[in-house]
Order: sequence, then C-alpha cells, then structure tokens
Amino acid sequence: MALIVEKFGGTSIGSVERINIVADHLIKKHQAGEQLVVVVSAMSGETNRLIGLANDITNSPSPREMDVLVSTGEQVTIALLSMALQQRGNDARSYTGGQVSIRTDDTHSRARIVDIDGAKIKSDLDRGRIVVVAGFQGVDVAGNITTLGRGGSDTTAVAIAAAIKADECRIYTDVDGIYTTDPRVVSNARRLESITAEEMLELASLGAKVLQTRSVEFAGKYKVPLRVLSSFVEGPGTLITYEEEGSSMEAPLISGIAFQRDEAKLTIRGIPDHPGIAHQVLGPISDAHINVDVIIQNASAKGFTDLTFTVARSDYVACMKILNNLVTELNAQDVKGDNQIAKVSIVGVGMRSHTGVANKMFKTLADNDINIQMISTSEIKISVIVEEQHLEKAVQTLHDAFELEKV
Amino acid sequence: MALIVEKFGGTSIGSVERINIVADHLIKKHQAGEQLVVVVSAMSGETNRLIGLANDITNSPSPREMDVLVSTGEQVTIALLSMALQQRGNDARSYTGGQVSIRTDDTHSRARIVDIDGAKIKSDLDRGRIVVVAGFQGVDVAGNITTLGRGGSDTTAVAIAAAIKADECRIYTDVDGIYTTDPRVVSNARRLESITAEEMLELASLGAKVLQTRSVEFAGKYKVPLRVLSSFVEGPGTLITYEEEGSSMEAPLISGIAFQRDEAKLTIRGIPDHPGIAHQVLGPISDAHINVDVIIQNASAKGFTDLTFTVARSDYVACMKILNNLVTELNAQDVKGDNQIAKVSIVGVGMRSHTGVANKMFKTLADNDINIQMISTSEIKISVIVEEQHLEKAVQTLHDAFELEKV
Repeated sequence: MALIVEKFGGTSIGSVERINIVADHLIKKHQAGEQLVVVVSAMSGETNRLIGLANDITNSPSPREMDVLVSTGEQVTIALLSMALQQRGNDARSYTGGQVSIRTDDTHSRARIVDIDGAKIKSDLDRGRIVVVAGFQGVDVAGNITTLGRGGSDTTAVAIAAAIKADECRIYTDVDGIYTTDPRVVSNARRLESITAEEMLELASLGAKVLQTRSVEFAGKYKVPLRVLSSFVEGPGTLITYEEEGSSMEAPLISGIAFQRDEAKLTIRGIPDHPGIAHQVLGPISDAHINVDVIIQNASAKGFTDLTFTVARSDYVACMKILNNLVTELNAQDVKGDNQIAKVSIVGVGMRSHTGVANKMFKTLADNDINIQMISTSEIKISVIVEEQHLEKAVQTLHDAFELEKV
Repeated sequence: MALIVEKFGGTSIGSVERINIVADHLIKKHQAGEQLVVVVSAMSGETNRLIGLANDITNSPSPREMDVLVSTGEQVTIALLSMALQQRGNDARSYTGGQVSIRTDDTHSRARIVDIDGAKIKSDLDRGRIVVVAGFQGVDVAGNITTLGRGGSDTTAVAIAAAIKADECRIYTDVDGIYTTDPRVVSNARRLESITAEEMLELASLGAKVLQTRSVEFAGKYKVPLRVLSSFVEGPGTLITYEEEGSSMEAPLISGIAFQRDEAKLTIRGIPDHPGIAHQVLGPISDAHINVDVIIQNASAKGFTDLTFTVARSDYVACMKILNNLVTELNAQDVKGDNQIAKVSIVGVGMRSHTGVANKMFKTLADNDINIQMISTSEIKISVIVEEQHLEKAVQTLHDAFELEKV
C-alpha cells in the first residue's frame, strides 16, 4: 500500500468549499488504496488577520508570542479538514506540530526542524485513518511553540515524509507542475514529467518560485520523492528526482529556461588594481543589505581593472550612490549603470557531461541579434545578462534551439 | 509577596482596547507587589465564529476536533495579552493548557481537570514574569486537546490557584460582586463583602449566574479563596469563604434572596397510592430531558395521593402532554397546571443554628397577602412558590424583613 504525504497551502484550502473539495479528493485517494498524511497551512487570509491583531497591540511583538498566535491558523484548518473527512466516513485525526513531536530549534518565526517522531502517525495510518497535521509549526525542546517561517508547510510535509519513509510527498500548488519555462512567455512551454532536485533549486532560485528552496534541499537530503501538482486541476504534475551517480549520461541536455526581469547592472571602472578590490567595492553594498547576483571582474589591463555586478532593480539608485562615493575613495575612473537589463539562464544536469551547450546558447542569441552583456556559469546552469527588451525573444529562441517543447 | 490568580472572561478581554485595559490593570497590580497568573477566555464572539465554521462543514462535528478548533480561541488571547504586557515592560509568558500540563480526563467538550503541574508557572513567577494561561482547555493523558465546557475558564483559574497555593483567585465578571438580591428588583440591595461557598452555590443554582457552580465546588474542595469582581468598575467585589466548624454562630442569618421567574407547576391528582408513584410520573418527564425542580407528594388520603412539581415554563406544554397520557395509565383523576408562578428563596448558613427563620419568611409573605403555593427547604435555603405577579413584592418585603440592606 503506497504511503503518501500530501500538502495543501492556504489558497488550496482557503474556504469551507475548498476544504470540502480537498476532503473529497483525499477520500478518493484513500479508497484507491493510499495511506495518507495531509499537511495543511492556515486558510488564506487567516495569518494576516492574526498579524493584524498583534500589530494593533504593539509594533514589536515578541517572536515567541507571534508563534503562539499565528500557529492557531493551521490548528483551525486541521480541525475543519478532519471534520470534513469524518463527515465522509474516515476516522481522521488532526495533530498540531507539538502533538506529533515536530521538534525544532528555538529560533522563533524561522525555526528549523530537528526531529519528528513518526510513531503516532504510523499507528493511526495502520488503523486506516487519514492523518491531518498542521504545517508550519513545531515545538522546541522546552515545549515552546515555534513556526518555520515562509514556505514552512512544504518543509513540514517533506520532513514527515522523511520520518515515516513515505513513497511520495505531493505538494499541491496553484500551478500544475514545473515547466520548461514560463508558459506566459513561451506558448509551447512543456510541463516536465520530472526534474532533478539540483535543477529545481537552480530554477527556483532564479525566479520560478513554485517550491521553497528550503523544502527542496530538505527533500534532497533525505531523498524524498517530491511531486508538484495543482490543487485545482487534475494531472500528474512534476516529480522531483535525485541524481544517481552516472545517471546524468541519459539526462536531457537542458531541462528548463529561467529568467529574471527587473535586474540592474553597475560597473565601477578604472580601479587601480590591487588585492582586495572586490571586497572594498562589495563590502559597502553588503552593509546596505543589498543582494548582489552576478559579479564579473575584468582581467587587469595596465594596472587598472573594472568590476561589474547586478542587483535587483529596486536597489539600483541606492547602489549607484554607494559606488559614486567609492570612486574618489578608490581613486577609480567612474561609475556606469544600466537598469534595463534582464537575466536568462538555461539549466540542466545534462550539461555536465556534454560539451557545446554554452556555445549553442551564445550562437543562438547571436543569430537573433541579442547582445550578451555578462556571462555567469555554474556546473548545471549558464546565465547571461541581456537588454530587457530582448528578454522574451531570448527565452523563445533558446526554447526552440534546445527543442524543449519535445519530450 | 501575595500570589494571585486573576481570570478574565470573553467580554472583559473582547477587543484590542479591552486587552490593553486589562494589561494596564495587571501591570499596576504587579508593580504593587503581586505575583500574577492570568487566566483568559477567548475574545467574545470568537468561539461562536469557530463553531460557525465547523457547522458549515458538518452538522455533527466530532468532539475531539471541536476541541482542537475552539481551543484556538484562548490561544489567540494569551498571545495578544502577553504582547500587551511585554509592550508595558513585563517579560510575560503565555501558555496553552497543554503547555502547563493541565491534565484532564478524555471527555471532550466537558473534560474534568485531573492534575496541574505548577512548576513551570512557579519558575516564571520567580523571575518576575506575569504568566498568562489559556482557560477552558487541557490535554488528556494521550496528549489530545480537551475543553472543559461552559464556565471552564473559571475552573482553570481555580485549579491553578489550588495547584500553586495562591493567596486568592479573582474572577473578573460584568458585575461588581454578589448582591443580597437582584438590584434591578430591590433598589437597596447590598453588595456582600463575603459569602460562604455553600450560600454561593445555592444562590448560583437558583439563578444568580455569576460564577459557574462547578468552579465554586472546585474552589471549596481546595479551600481556594475566591473573589468575584467587576472588570469594568474598580471595587473590592465579594469574597467567597469556607465555613470553619462552629463559625456559623456568627454568620448572618440570611445572606441573600434568589428568585426565578418563568417557572411552571403541574399537579397530577388522585393517583391510587402505591410504591413507585413518583418514579412512574417523573420517569417519562426525565426521559423527555425535562428538568424537574421542586417536587411535593401529598400525604396519602383514602388511598389516593397528589404529586406536584415545577419545571421551566418552556417545558410546560410538553410536560402537560406527558401527564395527560399518564392519567389513564395510572388511573389517576386529572392533571392541573399553572404556568404563571415564580420561585423565591432565602439563603443563609445562619439558619442552621437559628430557629424561626422559616416562620419569619412565611409570616412576612402572609402579612403582604402573598399566598405560598409550595414550600421546599434545604439546610441553608428555604424556597417558596408564589404567583408570578407577586414576585417583586415578595423579594422586596423579604429583603426588608431580614434587613439585608444593613451590614
């Protein structure tokens, strides 16, 4: 009998009507022979309502009490979903994070799961019960209620799946899977049957925010088979897999194309070259809590060097100000910037064992008169910075060139 | 340093504004040198909102899941009140019922407290913290969330006071104490400085619903000094005390007058007398879930007897129907009824050691042309049934006769 963990987020379960739909779905799966653990979030809007109450009391609520407060959101959902399942004849049981010993560290509002005792869950499953667990929450060693922070319910689901050695962990979302690229940009973008966790991480961190990075990392650590599906449309979704040694030979060259708009690029030019330049420039940027993405330092020419990097477009003005101050300090020539750029990345574990992938990307862009401003590579990803106006064309032509519309 | 448990119900703490007022009050008490444990209910309206959600899902929610659901109400309040106290500089801590080990039996929705571990509370108090505990809830031995049923937060407060041996348990309500009778009926009704638990129980069960009977019984068992005060007006309230052996000599003759409108009386007349008559008549009434209050069986005359009893007026029609069916079955004469009656009771531990109290009551009513229809007595209470139209006059003249307006 397949042992499955399913997770439904706030939108999937955001009303009594939606709870009934999810209950119908679960009963069907259960009757088809699956043992089911269901992890749920707070009904959409509920967490914000609770935060609003706290903000009416104080503008600096203690993290401990915020966790006591917001964790009630999931507790309401588990009770209601269990009632809906019982109404349909299953002897379902709800559990808060504390009740199934989801032990975390004591970092309130962004705690990390340390351990889960799966025994109680297993015992209920063996009696034919559907087990409903509150996502997003746990308890620390002293019994204080903790919450896991953004995307926490995904992590709860994965952690439970690991603890009870589930056959699959299904994350229900508002999309029906992971696509080769954004279907709004490329009309023949294709849903992937499967994708490796590494590729998923590269795609997710590049903007395809379907699953929280943390839950994918967690799933990878315990090799939990993870599937992303839609809670609104039937379908197989996308399975996230883990590479076996040597399996990349058969992997597709490229799995997907990610892109990010709203990027900006800054260059500080003519810096007298000496060790520590990167730190001197990027230190003040980091101190201003600005995340730097792609960084390129030109090879030194005649004792001078240039440093170029990208940031989110919203940080462009602040960044420019910092660099202008640095010009005098570092005795540099000047600062140039461009806040109309975008990043396009091709991702695939296949490129590890195949040469020519980068070259094919660059040639495709050149053939389409798209100038590459910066290049950054990792083992399974190649990113280029292009003018924002060329973004759609770049994504479409790369999708065509790598034939991503074909299985 | 005085060790105090204070309890605030849903109305007292029903809005952010009220939570701030309660927090101000607690900080003042704490600064005056009191160690404080605060027990709170759900904000008014919240429990009904949650029950409404459950009813949208099913018309027969399981008691276990209802407890998971409604217990979130108090959890929200403890977090918000703790935030308000922290905002005012106290390092307050909130605890759910489970977190301070309020162990109950497993009777969901009306569980009984078995044990409380006061160690965690004591440890926080010793660090100068105000401890905020969710009323109404606990956990059974298996870790399931339970609730205590109506008035449960009062019981939580009393149980904690007993567990930590508090000097006083203060129940904040919407009245400023226990009165000799209802001030809306008798304008010179007087707030009692103190009342014995026994008198309180008689008064409460007779309709002066200030405290739940159960919490007073619980307080009596552990001799917890209990005080009823208003959360809206400053004042000393009324202290509920426990009789010492022999102390009743000094007790006032009568402490208060309770009354109950909306009563009805039924008589089944001319029943052939034989053992088991009361059971034969009252059994079907009980089977219909109708509570019988005062019962009188006349001395048998010529082998026939009458049985008269009172019920709530809303049960009058149903009761009459049952009795009419019984007339044939029991070969009785007929059934008579009156649904325009009321009950007036004088209560006082002093009547144990004083004779003539009953006589004074009956004479007072006779002097005022109020006919007594039925009489029922207990050790510390005498109740009479009168025509409803005479209720106010009966209460007022008895209040005057026993000089209850004087200390």
